[in-house]
Amino acid sequence: MKYPIKKVSHENKQSTVSNRGMDLEEAINLTNQVYIDRDRAYIYKKPIPIQVVSVMYEKRSAAKITEAYYKIPSTTDYNGIYKGRYIDFEAKETISKTSFPLKNIHEHQVKHLAHITQHGGIGFIIVQFKTIGKVFLLDSRHVSRFYQRYLENSGDRRSISLAEFEEFGYMIKESYALRLDYLSIVDQVYFKET
Amino acid sequence: MKYPIKKVSHENKQSTVSNRGMDLEEAINLTNQVYIDRDRAYIYKKPIPIQVVSVMYEKRSAAKITEAYYKIPSTTDYNGIYKGRYIDFEAKETISKTSFPLKNIHEHQVKHLAHITQHGGIGFIIVQFKTIGKVFLLDSRHVSRFYQRYLENSGDRRSISLAEFEEFGYMIKESYALRLDYLSIVDQVYFKET
Repeated sequence: MKYPIKKVSHENKQSTVSNRGMDLEEAINLTNQVYIDRDRAYIYKKPIPIQVVSVMYEKRSAAKITEAYYKIPSTTDYNGIYKGRYIDFEAKETISKTSFPLKNIHEHQVKHLAHITQHGGIGFIIVQFKTIGKVFLLDSRHVSRFYQRYLENSGDRRSISLAEFEEFGYMIKESYALRLDYLSIVDQVYFKET
Repeated sequence: MKYPIKKVSHENKQSTVSNRGMDLEEAINLTNQVYIDRDRAYIYKKPIPIQVVSVMYEKRSAAKITEAYYKIPSTTDYNGIYKGRYIDFEAKETISKTSFPLKNIHEHQVKHLAHITQHGGIGFIIVQFKTIGKVFLLDSRHVSRFYQRYLENSGDRRSISLAEFEEFGYMIKESYALRLDYLSIVDQVYFKET
């Protein structure tokens, strides 16, 4: 359960423009803000699910949570609306140069994305290969397929290889104004625009 | 900041079928589960936003959050997808018999709903008048309009009256299988079905 804590700590962190080593979450948040400012889309980050155990009440001050734990997320990091369509995705980084370990995604999240797709929405994952500076968008249907392979073959194929991302996914290019313009890929993949 | 704490404590509470005094959040959660089970819609509750201040790490056990605070929500309680459309709403109770005080809704939430509507989604609030046992759906455009009146006239009109809910909103009836079948109202209002 390392990742939600990490997320909390770097909310205001600065980072370089390069995809290599950039903070994926920060890049997406900045990109989403540009989309909002330009009225292009309305996509936002969901709160991190936390189970509150005890709360201390003091007069004249805010309720203080004194014991709580990170919950396993049942949904994804981001969702919103684009061109009238429901859009939903999970964003993950890996330091591996060759594959993305599927243990980084929870089964509930895979099912969540499948529900979205089933009901006519757009669902995918964004995976950053941090060491080689490449970022991919992979549609929910492929995520479900690779996750099924992972569940059925616990001994091997515990990941999605870089070659599979290159075959079934779409590379997202960085740009200066739009740090990670994933909606240009969404246009290509889901709206058949170029 | 009483309400998020209340939410945490009654997650597993039982309640009667009657709208009078029913737990609104529980009724919506149960209804959403039926919608999911019937493949009618995929609508779910977002996590409550919490600002984590300090976390204790101990070997071989989960990270324990030892200091955290409830944040003012910038989005709404519920969102999801229905008939391919993005759907988003906030649910509130009042014990007043005559009006719903607008201090119960944050400006960020009103703007959030306006964004949803602007981008082609369906946005509304569900308000339960607990004492008189009536539940209404009010579209985001009316919420924005009444909120604007509230901001401009701080001396009076700090609420939306029951009469205004009756004129501009839609009453949601309870049913046995579907505790609070708000999608039947959504069909009428947003899909022009009866």
